[in-house]
Amino acid sequence: MKSNIPPVNFPKVIIVGGGFGGIQLAKNLNNKEVQVFMLDRHNYHTFQPLLYQVATGGLEADSIAFPLRKIFKGQKNFTFRNTDVLSINPENNSISTTIGDFDYDYLVLATGSDTNFFGSKELEHFTMPMKTIPEALNLRSMLLQNLEEALIEHDPVKKAALLNFVVVGGGPTGVELSGAISELKRHVLKKDYPELNIGDVNIYLIEGSNVVLGPMSVQAQRSAKEFLEEMGVNVVTGVTVVSYDGDVIKLSNEVEIVSKNVLWSAGVKGNFPEGISNDHIVRGGRIKVDRFNRIEGYSNIFAIGDVAAMITNETPNGHPGVAPVAMQQGKLLSKNLIKIINKEEPEPFEYFDKGSMATVGRNRAVVDIGKIRFQGIFAWFVWMFVHLMSLVGFRNKLVVFVNWIWSYFSFDRGTRLIIRPFNRESMTEDTSNK
Amino acid sequence: MKSNIPPVNFPKVIIVGGGFGGIQLAKNLNNKEVQVFMLDRHNYHTFQPLLYQVATGGLEADSIAFPLRKIFKGQKNFTFRNTDVLSINPENNSISTTIGDFDYDYLVLATGSDTNFFGSKELEHFTMPMKTIPEALNLRSMLLQNLEEALIEHDPVKKAALLNFVVVGGGPTGVELSGAISELKRHVLKKDYPELNIGDVNIYLIEGSNVVLGPMSVQAQRSAKEFLEEMGVNVVTGVTVVSYDGDVIKLSNEVEIVSKNVLWSAGVKGNFPEGISNDHIVRGGRIKVDRFNRIEGYSNIFAIGDVAAMITNETPNGHPGVAPVAMQQGKLLSKNLIKIINKEEPEPFEYFDKGSMATVGRNRAVVDIGKIRFQGIFAWFVWMFVHLMSLVGFRNKLVVFVNWIWSYFSFDRGTRLIIRPFNRESMTEDTSNK
Repeated sequence: MKSNIPPVNFPKVIIVGGGFGGIQLAKNLNNKEVQVFMLDRHNYHTFQPLLYQVATGGLEADSIAFPLRKIFKGQKNFTFRNTDVLSINPENNSISTTIGDFDYDYLVLATGSDTNFFGSKELEHFTMPMKTIPEALNLRSMLLQNLEEALIEHDPVKKAALLNFVVVGGGPTGVELSGAISELKRHVLKKDYPELNIGDVNIYLIEGSNVVLGPMSVQAQRSAKEFLEEMGVNVVTGVTVVSYDGDVIKLSNEVEIVSKNVLWSAGVKGNFPEGISNDHIVRGGRIKVDRFNRIEGYSNIFAIGDVAAMITNETPNGHPGVAPVAMQQGKLLSKNLIKIINKEEPEPFEYFDKGSMATVGRNRAVVDIGKIRFQGIFAWFVWMFVHLMSLVGFRNKLVVFVNWIWSYFSFDRGTRLIIRPFNRESMTEDTSNK
Repeated sequence: MKSNIPPVNFPKVIIVGGGFGGIQLAKNLNNKEVQVFMLDRHNYHTFQPLLYQVATGGLEADSIAFPLRKIFKGQKNFTFRNTDVLSINPENNSISTTIGDFDYDYLVLATGSDTNFFGSKELEHFTMPMKTIPEALNLRSMLLQNLEEALIEHDPVKKAALLNFVVVGGGPTGVELSGAISELKRHVLKKDYPELNIGDVNIYLIEGSNVVLGPMSVQAQRSAKEFLEEMGVNVVTGVTVVSYDGDVIKLSNEVEIVSKNVLWSAGVKGNFPEGISNDHIVRGGRIKVDRFNRIEGYSNIFAIGDVAAMITNETPNGHPGVAPVAMQQGKLLSKNLIKIINKEEPEPFEYFDKGSMATVGRNRAVVDIGKIRFQGIFAWFVWMFVHLMSLVGFRNKLVVFVNWIWSYFSFDRGTRLIIRPFNRESMTEDTSNK
């Protein structure tokens, strides 16, 4: 086949989701004899690892988002549609969306994960998740609004609730978020709110297991806990949340904390449209896939990244929900789709683990690369470098770099703005923009 | 009096509004024997001259906003409250706000201006204003949403409506906005939306008088019109809007344009809380003040900036609604308040006009400084320099500078993101965040 044949005759690959996995897949299908359709409910890619900096006023939202259309500028076989997928109809190879139905030859779910409240409507209503940019901005507004309110509150219990920050979940997000709130407290609040007794601001990190950063090395876990404690965060491990009614959070160790600021980073679950048989859903709400990322029971539907659980002997719960897994699966699937179309044998996925890292605060991070483990200031520079390089787009890299340099020398965080005030009661599916 | 006397005994000055005027006033009252209270419905200062760049995806909202608390960090006689003032009660020297009542010895309204729809509920509902950051972000979302919708619209009239952009009002805002939309069209849309016939995108600038940039020199007016026309903007002067129902805009020359994108920058009016007697309100809804910015009929209530109309022989309609007027009035009032407190004679206000300028697009701006007038690339650099230097905060200057340099060389605009989708029907007073 020659490449000047109109691409309309080529098989149609629909990719749902423009995250790390979807982007890799679509990019690697450039100049291949397929039509690529990407659908996403946002018109931008979100760099999720830095959401916590948006939520705590360190970075503008716009520097960690990148327009999806721009990523694929000039890619001739690529079409983007900004829409929400409502359901998958495998029986007739089509999907239903808010802008109509689309047929596919191959369908790839790269839909990522969403916050897991483990079925609790109460926690879903009263705690703050942070998986999307609108959610991170809601969190920023709420934290700042509660500080403003604390200044005019005379009731000591209500005031304490406004100044107690409780982060639930000691994974990388929870560690980074509680560390960032501590820096906000120590470097910014005492200058911005001279009327406030900064000692009244308390930060708790609640983790159900006995360690923070569960999947990392013992050295990393230990250092992260030490760093957090040096920074004044109360790290409470081996304790789970029993209930939270919007005012008091009750823990499994009988402790109760009054708080208006409960941030939920205790779990994620696969996030996908209706239409996939329940038989294929495993722990964490992920979809079971084979070594080629094909969803069991379907010949032409695939899932990659966070939403997929590739269960093998080495990965009994699937791979970790991190960007490199999604990217590697996306890249391999681009090759395998072409092989499948050409009736060749696809290659099985092998994860190449480049290591993991988390930052706690200024000069304090932890890095595990295979057997190499280091913590502290060098780890922090490595963390910054890796994240900067992973950001999509030169402008974003530049703006984030400028912000970080500036914050490092000024001890400041620039964007503590309440642009859209947060109002829990007026939140609907529609306005929360998940 | 010594300055270690508790400031609580000092006269209490309440400043409503943290715009250019309010900030100058409060800053210049630093170390003076008064208590300064600033109230603002936002917790940040907005650099309004660059709102049009936020609306068209050129700058992040966070780079043209600056936290008010941070501006006054370390100013001991300063207190900030994030609240909406509901009414003024001059009879007992107090104001009512959403967080309770406040007493004052001196009250200064620095509340600026709001969009003037000249009483038309229809225009207020269907057109897009751009006076605040949330409004600029709504505009950005709406423009991008309509482009996405145009791609899937098959009805040619509906499609045309989505691709026709009508800016009403040929003042600096309208000129800058229509110029920026033209740059978006020529440099960005044709790359981002390869499916779109870029020739189908039409931009109109509608102005009621016979010239754009009314208050500027004839050379500036002529150049601005030429620049706009070179850039493909249809400049329609001497024509007013008769009606707009959300689909068709009818003009006074009998022309009708189908458009889903009508941007309203045709007028402003003073914006202030209830409680000022109607006798003192003049043309444009501004409050009549004397040469000392005192509101007629009150001994201790002042108004500065856009909301104030200081009517003299030289200024029969008051001063222009621009930042330098507000800043100079704020600065002088800080001196005059101290004089008044000390029973000295206050100084009358004299406006020092530093000139005016407007930018149309890349390398195209117009500048009038007294009798000196120039247009084109040098004017554009002057415009950029002056605006950059006027931005509050080093971080903002740096981030805006980086963005401009990057845009200049890449011909790109970085932030075309739909973060909060705009939905006219769900807009309420509350969610619009005026």
